[in-house]
Amino acid sequence: MKLDLSSIIALGLDGLSYDSLKSHEEKIIPSIKLFNERGQGFTSLPKLKAPVLAVKEMAHNLKGKFKDVVILGIGGSALGINCLRDSLKGPYWNINGSPRVFVLDNLDMVDEVEKIIDLDETLFLVISKSGRTPETMGEFFYFKEKVSAKNFLFITDPTDGVLRKLSKEMRIATLDIPKNVGGRFSVLTAVGLLPAALMGIDIENLLDGADSMLASFQSEEFDLNFPFQIATIQYLLDWRHGISMNVMMPYSTRLQTFADWYSQLLAESIGKDGKGLTPIRALGVTDQHSQIQLYNEGPNDKLIMFIEVEEGSETSMPSIDVPDLSYLSNVSFHRLMNLEKKATEQALSEYKKANLTIKIPRIDEYELGKLFMLFESSIAFLGEYYSIDAFNQPGVELGKTLTKKLLSQSK
Amino acid sequence: MKLDLSSIIALGLDGLSYDSLKSHEEKIIPSIKLFNERGQGFTSLPKLKAPVLAVKEMAHNLKGKFKDVVILGIGGSALGINCLRDSLKGPYWNINGSPRVFVLDNLDMVDEVEKIIDLDETLFLVISKSGRTPETMGEFFYFKEKVSAKNFLFITDPTDGVLRKLSKEMRIATLDIPKNVGGRFSVLTAVGLLPAALMGIDIENLLDGADSMLASFQSEEFDLNFPFQIATIQYLLDWRHGISMNVMMPYSTRLQTFADWYSQLLAESIGKDGKGLTPIRALGVTDQHSQIQLYNEGPNDKLIMFIEVEEGSETSMPSIDVPDLSYLSNVSFHRLMNLEKKATEQALSEYKKANLTIKIPRIDEYELGKLFMLFESSIAFLGEYYSIDAFNQPGVELGKTLTKKLLSQSK
Repeated sequence: MKLDLSSIIALGLDGLSYDSLKSHEEKIIPSIKLFNERGQGFTSLPKLKAPVLAVKEMAHNLKGKFKDVVILGIGGSALGINCLRDSLKGPYWNINGSPRVFVLDNLDMVDEVEKIIDLDETLFLVISKSGRTPETMGEFFYFKEKVSAKNFLFITDPTDGVLRKLSKEMRIATLDIPKNVGGRFSVLTAVGLLPAALMGIDIENLLDGADSMLASFQSEEFDLNFPFQIATIQYLLDWRHGISMNVMMPYSTRLQTFADWYSQLLAESIGKDGKGLTPIRALGVTDQHSQIQLYNEGPNDKLIMFIEVEEGSETSMPSIDVPDLSYLSNVSFHRLMNLEKKATEQALSEYKKANLTIKIPRIDEYELGKLFMLFESSIAFLGEYYSIDAFNQPGVELGKTLTKKLLSQSK
Repeated sequence: MKLDLSSIIALGLDGLSYDSLKSHEEKIIPSIKLFNERGQGFTSLPKLKAPVLAVKEMAHNLKGKFKDVVILGIGGSALGINCLRDSLKGPYWNINGSPRVFVLDNLDMVDEVEKIIDLDETLFLVISKSGRTPETMGEFFYFKEKVSAKNFLFITDPTDGVLRKLSKEMRIATLDIPKNVGGRFSVLTAVGLLPAALMGIDIENLLDGADSMLASFQSEEFDLNFPFQIATIQYLLDWRHGISMNVMMPYSTRLQTFADWYSQLLAESIGKDGKGLTPIRALGVTDQHSQIQLYNEGPNDKLIMFIEVEEGSETSMPSIDVPDLSYLSNVSFHRLMNLEKKATEQALSEYKKANLTIKIPRIDEYELGKLFMLFESSIAFLGEYYSIDAFNQPGVELGKTLTKKLLSQSK
């Protein structure tokens, strides 16, 4: 992985010269110390062996028993699974893969998914740390009326909550979400690892990739600390220049759901106390034909974070004997994609718009593990820059309370 | 359809009282006059009979001949088709529908889609007004080497461009995109209508719905003119309060790709001359577990536009005998969805965040046609509020030029 800041440094924005950026490196160690005091566990996940063994054993026992897997989960219990499936197995896994993995992360999907699955041949993976998530639990009770206990598997708190209690009563196999890992940081727990293992994804490589990023996260040197570089740029653009929209724009269809995963991570972690960075999901080259007009010529309020995949397929266009299009002759689709990325980057720079690029050699377990940990650990620094608790989400409680009130009023 | 502005009016924002909003209605007629002078054709589409006949005849001739349809198109030649398929046929059409409709709107999708289709049984629908779109045309020349001319159908300019020329040379059946309709306004031309007809969608109802919205668009009265109400609020929030992010948040998975379609429409139309509104795609209830923390407690920089579907399935949760969850007993998923929407709206209002709601009775052809025209015609008013040409996209040219330059340099 490489992190290319040359475009943003070349803009000459106040406070964002290389030397200015580097001068913040003295904050790395104190920030990590403050982060450690918060008692968050996601940085310890890559080195834990027991959960990996438990997941592998469970996946082994389940192998061949079910045609489909339906995830009953929402938010952090859904977004990482979509990302693992699409990034590593491609956007058409549910058309030609096995087991298909459907993520039932909206209430109106119950009817839709029931039309296309055979209930008896489906494993329902119920994921909720508290066991109180109304959407997930409502779906669980619905399907519990229709299939037997052997079609369920729970992933929940190791000791507490409704699902843990039900798992004992109903004798349902259950995996743990560590108490010190929040939903949006849970992709490297059983939440992401079990569905991944069921699809044949190498979860040890995934964790090894994440682990290798921790060395970068702990480095005292600006140049080596990618999570700190990203957080510093995000913060300074917002604080000094009012640039508060962060566009995550992979040039890869497989990474489209990575942008969805990141959007929750950034929005819920930093969006509080009247502060916040707004994540925007984009996709190259596709959104060049949708959003780039705005990014280029619109207000200067966005940081565009590209992800570029260096290696790719050799599938190429043929020789083209048409005047306006002969320039495409014998160019591979992958090369055109990356040249369009470079052109988009240059155009943004000419329009004086901030952008940076994360380059990964390929999309595989190891690189995806790195990407997850890159952005999770950058949140640790962002939280300290903004002096907020990046690991709670108090602003979702009011909606929950009001839903209950409306339900009781309308009964 | 109802447009509910009560939440935003109740906020008491300067310039956004009901009377202040209504006072702008004198701008309706002059704005429509200016819009008409721009010579855009999308408002005339619902009443044109010939293109509908041509599409229906073509769809009739193609019926049963192909297992799959692959769209070679990007931006305005892709987003409307995804929306028509998902909104009216559900998110799993490509798993259990026929013909499946794959929208190949990114360069790295060529390899992916080739793994799951039988080339000989696939209709390739090549959509580009100019015939110069590099992604679409590169894909066309690639597949042209692999399948015969009878597997192709073009949708392009009525007289000019590369595809029109090739259609004659190769004798490929071709439908028109009217010269005065731009890509992001083309969903109600053959671009959207032919794929819709192939999936069994009633395109006449779709157009009738759009037509019925034109009466609202042309009304001189603020209360009756929904497109003007939306544009006025978007503009005033930006101009007077610096609220420039517009979140499109349907409470319906089927309408998720409607938000994608709208994102292009808003971004490319208004994002120019340093001005612009940034579209953000969200989905209720799903993104309550991802973005609502930010919308509630983050900076006051967003207008949230909900779409609520009033009628829905009766599928319900059973009686639930668990202390923390018994409040969900016997509630239908649809009712819970709409109560959560109402709770989210109330919570946003308590946090003083601007929001409005478009209520539609159900998702069908007629209502979707209305939604398309509601937002397309609101752009006509927005363009005049911002004093810009909402129908060009000059800011995408630089990237195209740079791509060609990079390609020629690297050869």
